[in-house]
Amino acid sequence: MNTQNKELNAIRSDAREIFRNSLMAVDPYKAVKRFIHIEGDRLLIGMEGRPEAELDLAEFDRIALVGAGKAAAPMARGIEELFGKKIRKGLINVKYGFTEKLAFTGIIESGHPVPDKNGVKGTEKILDFLRRANEKDLIFSLISGGGSALLPQPARNITLSEKQKITRDLLACGACIDEINAIRKHISSSKGGQMARAAFPASIVNLMLSDVVGDKMDVIASGPFVPDTSTFKDAWGIFKKYDLKGIPAAIHDHIKLGLEGQIPETPKENDKIFDRVLTYIVGSNILALEAASAMAKKLGYRTLILSSMVEGETKEIARVHTAIAKEILKTGRPIPPPACIISGGETTVTIRGDGLGGRNQEFCLASALDLIELPPRVVLLSGGTDGNDGPTDAAGAMVDPLTVTRGKNAGMPAERFLDRNDAYHFLNKTKDLLMTGPTNTNVMDVRLVLVR
Amino acid sequence: MNTQNKELNAIRSDAREIFRNSLMAVDPYKAVKRFIHIEGDRLLIGMEGRPEAELDLAEFDRIALVGAGKAAAPMARGIEELFGKKIRKGLINVKYGFTEKLAFTGIIESGHPVPDKNGVKGTEKILDFLRRANEKDLIFSLISGGGSALLPQPARNITLSEKQKITRDLLACGACIDEINAIRKHISSSKGGQMARAAFPASIVNLMLSDVVGDKMDVIASGPFVPDTSTFKDAWGIFKKYDLKGIPAAIHDHIKLGLEGQIPETPKENDKIFDRVLTYIVGSNILALEAASAMAKKLGYRTLILSSMVEGETKEIARVHTAIAKEILKTGRPIPPPACIISGGETTVTIRGDGLGGRNQEFCLASALDLIELPPRVVLLSGGTDGNDGPTDAAGAMVDPLTVTRGKNAGMPAERFLDRNDAYHFLNKTKDLLMTGPTNTNVMDVRLVLVR
Repeated sequence: MNTQNKELNAIRSDAREIFRNSLMAVDPYKAVKRFIHIEGDRLLIGMEGRPEAELDLAEFDRIALVGAGKAAAPMARGIEELFGKKIRKGLINVKYGFTEKLAFTGIIESGHPVPDKNGVKGTEKILDFLRRANEKDLIFSLISGGGSALLPQPARNITLSEKQKITRDLLACGACIDEINAIRKHISSSKGGQMARAAFPASIVNLMLSDVVGDKMDVIASGPFVPDTSTFKDAWGIFKKYDLKGIPAAIHDHIKLGLEGQIPETPKENDKIFDRVLTYIVGSNILALEAASAMAKKLGYRTLILSSMVEGETKEIARVHTAIAKEILKTGRPIPPPACIISGGETTVTIRGDGLGGRNQEFCLASALDLIELPPRVVLLSGGTDGNDGPTDAAGAMVDPLTVTRGKNAGMPAERFLDRNDAYHFLNKTKDLLMTGPTNTNVMDVRLVLVR
Repeated sequence: MNTQNKELNAIRSDAREIFRNSLMAVDPYKAVKRFIHIEGDRLLIGMEGRPEAELDLAEFDRIALVGAGKAAAPMARGIEELFGKKIRKGLINVKYGFTEKLAFTGIIESGHPVPDKNGVKGTEKILDFLRRANEKDLIFSLISGGGSALLPQPARNITLSEKQKITRDLLACGACIDEINAIRKHISSSKGGQMARAAFPASIVNLMLSDVVGDKMDVIASGPFVPDTSTFKDAWGIFKKYDLKGIPAAIHDHIKLGLEGQIPETPKENDKIFDRVLTYIVGSNILALEAASAMAKKLGYRTLILSSMVEGETKEIARVHTAIAKEILKTGRPIPPPACIISGGETTVTIRGDGLGGRNQEFCLASALDLIELPPRVVLLSGGTDGNDGPTDAAGAMVDPLTVTRGKNAGMPAERFLDRNDAYHFLNKTKDLLMTGPTNTNVMDVRLVLVR
C-alpha cells in the first residue's frame, strides 16, 4: 500500500466512524430511552437534563402503547423497558419482518409501501382500543416512517384499491405531496389527527421519529395524532385544480359530503382534544447530523452542518458538495482543513437507465467524477440511515479521488455507469459500497465531505 | 407599506449593496491598479503591501501592452494611467462595443462569441509585434474572458470555418471542455502559450481576470501566455476516442504532423520561455465573494462563503441554497441569523421551453418556489458579474418568500414560468429583476442567501 492509499484509508475510516455515530444517535430504542424518564411518580419527557414536560403517573390507572412505522418495534421495546408489566395493552403495526421480541405488545405485520388487509385489521384494532380509552389512560403513540401505509383505514365505504387509484392518478397529474396528503387524510378514518380524536379523553404522549424533510409533524405517517392543516375544501379544490377524471364514486361522494359539512372535519390545532396530546420528535435528521459533527470533532475535524433539508436531483446536489471540497482545498473556505462538511435530507433520482443503485450511491458516483483531479485527501460519504439505499443491500457509498481510476482499471467508465443509474455495480467493483445491514431506523440520509 | 414589506425591503437593500461591493472588487481597471505599483524604478507586482514579485524598470528600454477579452480596454486604461507616454505600443482585441478612450493603445473590435476576420487581423498584429520584441521589452498582457474567440489564429492553412466546424462536432459528440480546448490549442498559432513563445526573450507581466471555474490559467482565454498541459498526442487521442468523422483535411493533417513531431508542440511548463513570464490572476470569483462577505459583515451579518466553484443544473443548485436558508431559520445552522451565505461559480440551464431568462434569473425563480412557506426574513440574490444574464438586460434577480404570491396576484403561476425557462417575464412583473447595466467585468456569478 502506498502513502497515498494510507492517507486515504485513514480518512475513509474516519468517515465510516462518523456515519456510525450518526446511526447511533437516531436508534429508535435509544431515542425513546433518551427522551422518557421516570422518577418515582413523575414522568419526565425531553432530553436528559432538560425536560420539556412532566406528567404525574399517579393520575393514571392504565398505561398503554400503540404505534405504527418501520421503527415501531424498537420504540415499543424502549417503552416496555421503562414500564414493564405496568403496560396494560400494546398494539403496533409494522412492515413485514420489522419485528422484535416484545413482552406486552401485540405486533401486526402488514404491507408496505402498498397497504394490505392486515394493515386495515391492525388499524381497526388500534382504533377500537383508542375509542374505549378514558381519562385514566396514558397512551404512548410511537410513530415513524412508513406509518401512513401501515395505518390504512379508508373512510366509510371506500376500498383500499380505490384509495390507491386516486393516489396514482394524483401523482400522474403532477400533484405535489402536500396535495396528495390532503386528499389522503380526508378519505381516511385514522390520518390527520383522527387517532387523537378516537383516543380522547385519554392522555397521549406522541413520540415520533421523523423521516420527512423539515420534520413536519402532520406529514410523518400522515400525522395520526397531530392537528391537520388541510380541509375538505382543500381536497375538493385539488380535484378541481387538476380536473381529475374517473374519481371513484365513494371517494367523490365522501369529499362532497365533507365539503357540505355532513362529515366532521379532521381535527384542527385549536381542537380541545390536543390539550391531551403531547407530541415530540425523538429522532430526526438534524440529530443524526449533530452526532456526525460531534464525532468528526472528536476525530480532529472542523465541522459545518450545511442543512438537514437538502432535496433535489441527486447528481446535481453532488456538485455543490464537490464544489465545497474544491474550495476547502484551494482557499480554506468555508472552513479550512481538516474539514468535515455535513448535510442531510433526501434527494431524488430521475431514472435514466435500467441500472441498479440508490440515491446515496448515485450521489457518490456523481461526486467521484468531480473529484478526479483532486489530491488524495478528500472523501465523500452518502448513506441512508435505514441501511438500505434503493433496492440494494448497501446503505450507500464512500468515494475518493481514486474511485474513478479504480473503475477505469477494472474496465468500467464511470460516466456510462452514472448515465444508466448503475452506481451499485460500479461501486461494488471499486470497493466503495457502504454496508451496514438493516439499522431499524430511518431519518433520511447523511452526507459527509471530508478534507484533510 | 406593511411591516412585513418594510423588513423585507431592508434585507433586499442589503443584498443589493453586498452585490454592488462584489462588482467593485472585480472592476478590471481597479484590479490592475490594485495589483501593479511603481516606486521609482521598482515595479511591484501584487496586492498593495504584499508584493509577490518585483522588476527593475531600468532594465527595460520599452514598455508595451497587448491583450484580449471583454475587459481588455479597462485593464489597458489601468496600465496607461500607470505608465502614461512611456508606453511605446499598445494593441488589444475586444468585442464589438467593448471599447474605451485610450491614449496609447490601438483597439481592434472583433467578433465574439463567433470569431471573425477582424479578430484574425488583430491577432496577427499582436503576434507580429510580439515576434519583434526583445529582452529590453517589458510587455503587459491583459487577458480576460472572451479572449479565446478574440484571438483567433488558425494554424497554417486551416480556415476559421473549419475550426468552428470541429468545435461544433466535438460538442455534438459529447466531448468535455478540456478535450475541446486541447484540440483548439493544437490547431492555433496563438493559444496554449504560443504568444509567450512569440514574445521570447521579452519579459511578460501576464495579468488575467478569470471567468472560469477554478481559475485554471491555461483555460482563461485558452492561455495564450501560459504553459499548455495538453499535447498533439492528446488531440489525436480525442479524435480517436469519439471516432470523429469528416474532420477537415487541413485539421487532420496538422494534428497528424504534430503527432509525428514535424510541428513544434505548444510550450510546456518547463520551457525556458516561461522564465520570462510572470502570470497573475488579478480578479476572480473568490475575490468577488470575499468582497461580498466584507460588505455583509459591515451590514451586520454573519457570513459564510460556500464555494466559488459551484456548477450544475441551476434549479437543482437553487434547492441547496434554499435548504440552507430553511436550516438557518430552524436551527441556526450552519450559522445563526442574521446570516449571509455566499456562493459563486457558473451553473447551467437545460433548456426546456422557449421563455426568456438567464441562469441567475432561473436560480431565483426556482428558489422563490422553495421559499413560499418561509417568514419574510429571507432574500436570495443571484447575479452575473458582467451585468448580463442570458439574452436579457438584467444582471440577475432577487427574490423573497412573497415573490411567488406577487406573481400569483398578477395571474402568473411561477411553476409554469420556470417550466418554460421564462424567469425574465415572471420576475419583471414581480419587480424582482436586478439591473446593473454593463459592468465591464466578468468573473462569473455571485449568489447570496440573506436571513435575518
